Amino acid sequence: MESIAVGSGTMPLVGLGLWKIDEADTATAVVDAIRAGYRHLDSASDYGNEVAVGRGISTAIDAGLCRREDLWVTSKLWNTFHDPKHVAAACQRSLDDLGLDYLDLYLVHFPIAQPFVDFADRYPPGWFFEPQADAPSMELAAVPLSDTWRAMEELVEQGLVREIGICNYNSGLIHDLMTYAKRPPAMLQIESHPYLSQEALLRTAASYNIPVTAFSPLGALSYVALDMASDNESVLDEAVVLSAAQRVQRTPAQVVLRWAIQRGTAVIPKTSRSERLIENSSLFDFSLSGDEMAAISGLNRNRRFNDPGVFCEAAFNRFHAIYD
Amino acid sequence: MESIAVGSGTMPLVGLGLWKIDEADTATAVVDAIRAGYRHLDSASDYGNEVAVGRGISTAIDAGLCRREDLWVTSKLWNTFHDPKHVAAACQRSLDDLGLDYLDLYLVHFPIAQPFVDFADRYPPGWFFEPQADAPSMELAAVPLSDTWRAMEELVEQGLVREIGICNYNSGLIHDLMTYAKRPPAMLQIESHPYLSQEALLRTAASYNIPVTAFSPLGALSYVALDMASDNESVLDEAVVLSAAQRVQRTPAQVVLRWAIQRGTAVIPKTSRSERLIENSSLFDFSLSGDEMAAISGLNRNRRFNDPGVFCEAAFNRFHAIYD
Repeated sequence: MESIAVGSGTMPLVGLGLWKIDEADTATAVVDAIRAGYRHLDSASDYGNEVAVGRGISTAIDAGLCRREDLWVTSKLWNTFHDPKHVAAACQRSLDDLGLDYLDLYLVHFPIAQPFVDFADRYPPGWFFEPQADAPSMELAAVPLSDTWRAMEELVEQGLVREIGICNYNSGLIHDLMTYAKRPPAMLQIESHPYLSQEALLRTAASYNIPVTAFSPLGALSYVALDMASDNESVLDEAVVLSAAQRVQRTPAQVVLRWAIQRGTAVIPKTSRSERLIENSSLFDFSLSGDEMAAISGLNRNRRFNDPGVFCEAAFNRFHAIYD
Repeated sequence: MESIAVGSGTMPLVGLGLWKIDEADTATAVVDAIRAGYRHLDSASDYGNEVAVGRGISTAIDAGLCRREDLWVTSKLWNTFHDPKHVAAACQRSLDDLGLDYLDLYLVHFPIAQPFVDFADRYPPGWFFEPQADAPSMELAAVPLSDTWRAMEELVEQGLVREIGICNYNSGLIHDLMTYAKRPPAMLQIESHPYLSQEALLRTAASYNIPVTAFSPLGALSYVALDMASDNESVLDEAVVLSAAQRVQRTPAQVVLRWAIQRGTAVIPKTSRSERLIENSSLFDFSLSGDEMAAISGLNRNRRFNDPGVFCEAAFNRFHAIYD
């Protein structure tokens, strides 16, 4: 599979996104993915399934499907661990759960600092704080992003992680980060699909030579079940996608993923179905024409499905916009 | 005129915006505005006319039209003075030019740090850096916003300014600022008009009790001459604006300004014409209905006219998005 340079490493362009894979299915999904040729796993403390991801990795390695050094494993620092005094422990917890002694990439999950929640109290801690058990609320902590970044940099020096990066930062935050980072971010992970093409943000990242990974590369698909998108918002039903799919004799999903890769972003589609694993990674033996690329880019409508401003208000009574 | 609390002060809801008033017209415009009842002047180093603003202020005071303490004077720190060692000098330069010994409000003009340009070399320095006279380019400087904010806070302690605030910050930057500010911003100034209603950003500001001033409250008007908007983008031609104007027997501009004030933002429309000065500030003896407010808010299309990402690319060959 094709790869891109990420810091001093090399990351396969297609990874398995582990968000929302049931814990019971996760180990098998990881083994199936590795068997299907995946070498890039996109994990996070917040996904609640890192122990199972670790079981899948060790099963695959024990079965001789791959070696540790063949894999690119990403994990993410959750909001409640932004305080520098918790960053290494949070990273170590992910390493322990994954059964690894280093991460290839560790990302700040959101540019949102929340109050510390002890592992013993609740893990993963999620978005809410529980001053009273019956009144969960979203709370903020006064931890500057620059403090968190300095602690992330120390993880590299300590050898816990090879590369560090960011998720869900916008251009304003990236410019500021670049003024204080001793080690610039090796990766920006953001929601992106044809309805949220993020052209300006991609150009900002490119101006600093920061590669980009697109999460939710298929758009609404992951969000309908969460009531964060409606049924009729699927980019896979768009005429320009369908006609490109017919021309290249691939599925609409493959066309949309190919569009993402052809414009230079990595993708981390989620699936726990074997046939989908193969479909989602079979993107390197066809290409889209310039007209098809432009037509798919033209679908952009700045439609963001994963927005804390919206879902924290719905769940925890705090509106917390970070993109506007 | 009605006012809002800004820090420990009180700022009139309508101010005279001084951007793009020709230097030759500025002193007269300031005197005319003060004579027409304006007590709020929105100035900036970058506007290139602070000496003339100062002449207008002293003429008005000498003529007994107002006292210094009746005025609310805002100025702004330009990008090239973000380094803490230049902040006080930049503020003092604005004070000297304005002929004042304190500012009511001093704002970080953009969340963009650029290399220092000496007063003797070029003032105001603008967006570009001139390594060679024939090749102006937009350059960045590695000054974190947190360093600049600390220097802004010192201006208050030194008595040069009463209140400090920010312009053109988005919600991500505001959240981060709130984690490190010892003195929270007393004002957020942003582009806002019915085509860019900024509802999420207004909610973010409100969540921190930061009042908001809308610049370019009439929309495209200021930008057509700069080739940053086209003729047919005037919100003043919208049917819902025209019908509200007919009902309240005011001009479309007054309806759009009233909408801004009624939703809680201050406004700083620019004009150097006497009749417009009165029109733009005569907003407190009528009101819009809930339906009219909602219909005007419904015009939002996230249309931003003042975008460094776009105009720096056009002029200085550097794309520099800060809002995406």
